[in-house]
Amino acid sequence: MRRCRVALVQLALPAPGEAAWAAVEAGLEAAAASGAELAVLPELHQGPYFCQVEDPGHFEHAEPVPGPGTRRLGALARRLDLVIVGSLFERRAPGVFHNTAVVIERDGRLAGRYRKMHVPDDPGYYEKFYFTPGDLGFRPVDCSLGRLGVLVCWDQWFPEAARLMALAGAELLVYPTAIGWDPRDSEAERQRQFEAWRLVQRGHAVANVLPLVAVNRTGTEPDPGGQSEGIRFWGASFACGPQGELLAELPTDAPGVTVVEIDLERSAQVRRLWPFFRDRRIDAYAGLLSRWLDEA
Amino acid sequence: MRRCRVALVQLALPAPGEAAWAAVEAGLEAAAASGAELAVLPELHQGPYFCQVEDPGHFEHAEPVPGPGTRRLGALARRLDLVIVGSLFERRAPGVFHNTAVVIERDGRLAGRYRKMHVPDDPGYYEKFYFTPGDLGFRPVDCSLGRLGVLVCWDQWFPEAARLMALAGAELLVYPTAIGWDPRDSEAERQRQFEAWRLVQRGHAVANVLPLVAVNRTGTEPDPGGQSEGIRFWGASFACGPQGELLAELPTDAPGVTVVEIDLERSAQVRRLWPFFRDRRIDAYAGLLSRWLDEA
Repeated sequence: MRRCRVALVQLALPAPGEAAWAAVEAGLEAAAASGAELAVLPELHQGPYFCQVEDPGHFEHAEPVPGPGTRRLGALARRLDLVIVGSLFERRAPGVFHNTAVVIERDGRLAGRYRKMHVPDDPGYYEKFYFTPGDLGFRPVDCSLGRLGVLVCWDQWFPEAARLMALAGAELLVYPTAIGWDPRDSEAERQRQFEAWRLVQRGHAVANVLPLVAVNRTGTEPDPGGQSEGIRFWGASFACGPQGELLAELPTDAPGVTVVEIDLERSAQVRRLWPFFRDRRIDAYAGLLSRWLDEA
Repeated sequence: MRRCRVALVQLALPAPGEAAWAAVEAGLEAAAASGAELAVLPELHQGPYFCQVEDPGHFEHAEPVPGPGTRRLGALARRLDLVIVGSLFERRAPGVFHNTAVVIERDGRLAGRYRKMHVPDDPGYYEKFYFTPGDLGFRPVDCSLGRLGVLVCWDQWFPEAARLMALAGAELLVYPTAIGWDPRDSEAERQRQFEAWRLVQRGHAVANVLPLVAVNRTGTEPDPGGQSEGIRFWGASFACGPQGELLAELPTDAPGVTVVEIDLERSAQVRRLWPFFRDRRIDAYAGLLSRWLDEA
């Protein structure tokens, strides 16, 4: 058994700058105090989710990776003896920005990064304005705890992303996330969206026989553009095992930290019973590389 | 709104031949009496699930498609004015047999077939002995009710199968199934397996924004080889909508028929909100055609 104690650090991040860093720091300290070895933060944890509007001014807050954000996370990782998965607004070049997850080693080193490959754009989530889709592919990051299949938010709807991480040897799927309800939607629609989000990710765990953690924001953030009622981030960060079984979950409406022990060797056991990787029909999957299989 | 009334015809099939056909006929009659337009039968509904052992004698019961099984289903389809999804042991040539799902039109015609692409082989499910993996690919079948993405049992664990059917325009995913518990497994393991089976399929519904029906056997079938305690098929046939939301389900331990109304146009609406098909990174999916992404 190779156990990894993973902290889900669910945060409300209504204010930028030092206020957000204080929340991150307090969350990581709570994680360490609970014995965590790996701590996962929500998507873009340096402040409010700024993609509710398209505002060129926000590019001012992007930063190089490595840079100030990774240095600060690195200092926390060293002090707290934690591997940290963080999420930053990466400035790569003038006009080239990414939504980038970073893995910070316990010694503060940048172990690796993942640039969000699937970038959303729908009302309230105008990410295509800010982020160039990633060009690093679906490559897991090796760290002292194992091989992490780090993906980001919108990626969670794409079975291809989880599968490619699994095929590259990921031992744990990790999703920093920022997703919530539009308060104008009906209660039934909100419930369907929320359940769909959990279902599709737990489905990835099952299909790839891998444990998975998803860490989300919580709290309501107003729409700076005044066009909507803002986003009520639904929290509900969770961890599941390689059969999709829930191992831990946080509430929808409050920040919180929980530590869950995940056995990174159980996947290998379960894959003996359910040998999906033996039977993939790679001779018949070429259509997956098409946008749509139009009729001849 | 384009509604399709789908019957889940969950059967216990402990005996072959006329006994099995009587159960099939009664199930389809109940479906028609409840107003169904489409009826889905469990996998290999012409008798017990014979793959618990490797017995060359079972090849005697295979049949051509079209053949006696499709004629009999055709007569039922005509009499009951139903589209039927059935599941047969297809004899294609000496030494070439398939696990084949058929779609029978209301007028009795064979609308199309699907040959199971992913063929399992694990204790109690020795299908690789009997069935050559399908060579027709993941092509939906058009019928008077719409375009059906018919897959079979083990396929349900593979996101690629559902995705390819969706890319080819399937409007409904349909899985005839034969899956159950090994009575020797612990209650906790049985529960995990059962939930994993539902999660992964509901996940396919979400990821592809498609409704889905899975129809399973129920009842215990002994192991003719006496090597195990047999299989307790877990029933629990279900239908879900394009956000994975449960629309209908049957019990684990009894045969039954339920009819569920599915709106085949809702997917198009939901895909406007969640435009996953817009954002697939087909430029970065080549690895899906590999068995494993070994390190360089």
